[in-house]
Amino acid sequence: MAPPVFAIVASRESLADAMTRTAAEVERALDDLMPMPDGAEARLVEAMRYATLGGGKRMRAFLVMQGAALFNVDRRCAARVAASIEMMHAYSLVHDDLPAMDDDDLRRGKPSTHKAFDEATAILAGDALQARAFEVLAEPDTHSNPEARCELVLALGLASGARGMAGGQMIDMVAPSLAAAGNPMGAPEITRLQALKTGRLIQYSAEAGAMLGRAPSAQRHLLAAYGRDIGAAFQIADDLLDAEASTGDLGKTAGKDAAAGKATMVAVLGLERARIQADRLAEQAASHLDSFAEAGSSDEARQAAETLRALATYVVRRRS
Amino acid sequence: MAPPVFAIVASRESLADAMTRTAAEVERALDDLMPMPDGAEARLVEAMRYATLGGGKRMRAFLVMQGAALFNVDRRCAARVAASIEMMHAYSLVHDDLPAMDDDDLRRGKPSTHKAFDEATAILAGDALQARAFEVLAEPDTHSNPEARCELVLALGLASGARGMAGGQMIDMVAPSLAAAGNPMGAPEITRLQALKTGRLIQYSAEAGAMLGRAPSAQRHLLAAYGRDIGAAFQIADDLLDAEASTGDLGKTAGKDAAAGKATMVAVLGLERARIQADRLAEQAASHLDSFAEAGSSDEARQAAETLRALATYVVRRRS
Repeated sequence: MAPPVFAIVASRESLADAMTRTAAEVERALDDLMPMPDGAEARLVEAMRYATLGGGKRMRAFLVMQGAALFNVDRRCAARVAASIEMMHAYSLVHDDLPAMDDDDLRRGKPSTHKAFDEATAILAGDALQARAFEVLAEPDTHSNPEARCELVLALGLASGARGMAGGQMIDMVAPSLAAAGNPMGAPEITRLQALKTGRLIQYSAEAGAMLGRAPSAQRHLLAAYGRDIGAAFQIADDLLDAEASTGDLGKTAGKDAAAGKATMVAVLGLERARIQADRLAEQAASHLDSFAEAGSSDEARQAAETLRALATYVVRRRS
Repeated sequence: MAPPVFAIVASRESLADAMTRTAAEVERALDDLMPMPDGAEARLVEAMRYATLGGGKRMRAFLVMQGAALFNVDRRCAARVAASIEMMHAYSLVHDDLPAMDDDDLRRGKPSTHKAFDEATAILAGDALQARAFEVLAEPDTHSNPEARCELVLALGLASGARGMAGGQMIDMVAPSLAAAGNPMGAPEITRLQALKTGRLIQYSAEAGAMLGRAPSAQRHLLAAYGRDIGAAFQIADDLLDAEASTGDLGKTAGKDAAAGKATMVAVLGLERARIQADRLAEQAASHLDSFAEAGSSDEARQAAETLRALATYVVRRRS
């Protein structure tokens, strides 16, 4: 009988519980940050809320909240940054699902925004979500130090623009024509494509807590490395799910990558080697957090580090 | 013979010359801020540059540069903010021209971005332009004081999101269905629609110089009032041009508003009364700058104030 050990174990919520709790917290922040207006523009905000609220695993938000806990950042400030990142992520999904892009009618188990509303409203809702994401970061409530707010804005711009998410999306779009012209992408090109398309925003999510906490650059770099590896692992796991799962499990159309001839690590490496690569990346991600999990850090920081390490395993083991 | 007077007159360039000079300056800034990358994402940056470079009157950029001159702001800093606003304006035009929105094949006398490239690239280029616009504002080169940079980001978010440009665009889109349901918009509703759709970004352009110059709030409010009035005058003049001019003169498709049953002041007031309203707004805009044009201000500030007053007349008199 060892009550102290039991107490420690009991105080530690499971990863699933922590994710559920954070999702609820970020949901409230998103709800607060997008109030319904009175005018005829209400339809736009309705579409923004439809695209953002009540869905998704909130992995990016979870990364922000846990990263912030490493540096004892006020949870309300962290939740605003988490909400901002979820707005960016949601805008990218809304635009990706458009008929001119991936033409997907299903997202998070419900009709895509352009199906629930219409194409024009979906385009505008994505645009307005992006603007709101930057606006939230620049608001004084996000951090008392304007230098920190500028840093968050600047890094989000880099992660989401031509050198990040949008650039990766463009490469993804030209990949089939490169393949048709006899120049299919190899593993290094696909790694870069994925790093831009989804990796940069995940890395930013992992780093945001260090920016909010004004952490020393060495610690910020460790979180960036963690974010890079977990982002790459996540993307391969996503491609594995697309290749293996059913549409019902995923809440979005399955098997689309292969049908579209998309450049994925699964296509290049095959299922087995892609799975090994994802596991290796997840392990490597966790290893960057060794110093945070060691004695010397605060209890809260140690627990956050352990949760982030557990998340690395989760992203490659999840079934949806 | 009065040489001093002649010297003053000769030192003052015409409004047209000043606009041409500023346009060249902002063109260089835009070019610098969007270098071509090496990777397969080059097509995206090509589309961003196509949508932004070599076109337009650069009125918003001109407002920034002249507003900044009122407070002796470094021109390189002001040019970055001017370029950022032109990126936002360009992104909105790219998305507005999409088939799902206004479906316009012509912009600034050349094929719209989705015609020159493709729809997906145009959507992405608009998205990436918006991200770059915010990023540029947050970069230390824009202002040494991060508080000023945050203020610029925050105000741009407000001016362009659901409470600004995107919100106005949404109202514009629902207007025909309101009219069909027997509730056509009257002059007050159309004034609000235009204030959101184009006014807020023009007002922001007029105010940006005061933000860069850390001007007292009384002066900033005068510039905001100038921006509101010139924005409203500009929009009515734009609608008059659409109703009166030919497509060749405009460099974009003419007569579209009436064809689409759009809610405009011209439709509600008729040509004659709309023209009078535009002139009145232009006069009122100029009057807000009286205190800047008076003795006591620096020569540079006085000249900038006079140029801005001349601009108010120009926006309602221009033929394209």
